[in-house]
Amino acid sequence: MANNQTLDAVFHALADPTRRAVVQQLGRSPATVSELAAPFGMALPSFMKHIRVLENSKLVVSAKAGRVRTCTLRRECLAGAELWFDEQRSLWKTRYDNLDGLLAKLSGEE
Amino acid sequence: MANNQTLDAVFHALADPTRRAVVQQLGRSPATVSELAAPFGMALPSFMKHIRVLENSKLVVSAKAGRVRTCTLRRECLAGAELWFDEQRSLWKTRYDNLDGLLAKLSGEE
Repeated sequence: MANNQTLDAVFHALADPTRRAVVQQLGRSPATVSELAAPFGMALPSFMKHIRVLENSKLVVSAKAGRVRTCTLRRECLAGAELWFDEQRSLWKTRYDNLDGLLAKLSGEE
Repeated sequence: MANNQTLDAVFHALADPTRRAVVQQLGRSPATVSELAAPFGMALPSFMKHIRVLENSKLVVSAKAGRVRTCTLRRECLAGAELWFDEQRSLWKTRYDNLDGLLAKLSGEE
């Protein structure tokens, strides 16, 4: 399970359509910042702010070779956030299983 | 699939440990604001700000009866955000299935 600080940063990073689109694009393959920026009509400094938020969340790592910066998605970091949803669902499930058990017991006692 | 604005608001709401704890608590059952606030050493106005962020994201609805405000989780809204993760995973899967197919083909041609 990702710790609270990690989850804060990952959910914050995902709370923006540009950043979610970048994550989706990087899910296909690593890409350069220019490739990632191309679909958005955005000045490069503004786009770089989004990349930095993604890097701070550890969802994305980047490396520079010459003048080209290439970004890669860290899927395990996304999986950590997904796990939080799984945990919520398993809590609900436990609750409803218990309720089912109780109802079955009450029904048997009638 | 939840739209972009909804996803922005839901992920923003989840980017905080107090709000995630409230969502987890409401997953067990509806609860009053006082019950929800009890575990946190926080002034009520500060806690109410978190409740308002959760309400804005539509993750939580609340209703007032007399002086008591009761909050309820809207699970379908959480499920919408979870779906976003499912979609990313299915994109990767398609990509790797294609890669597997390609590798199998290349291997057959050797």
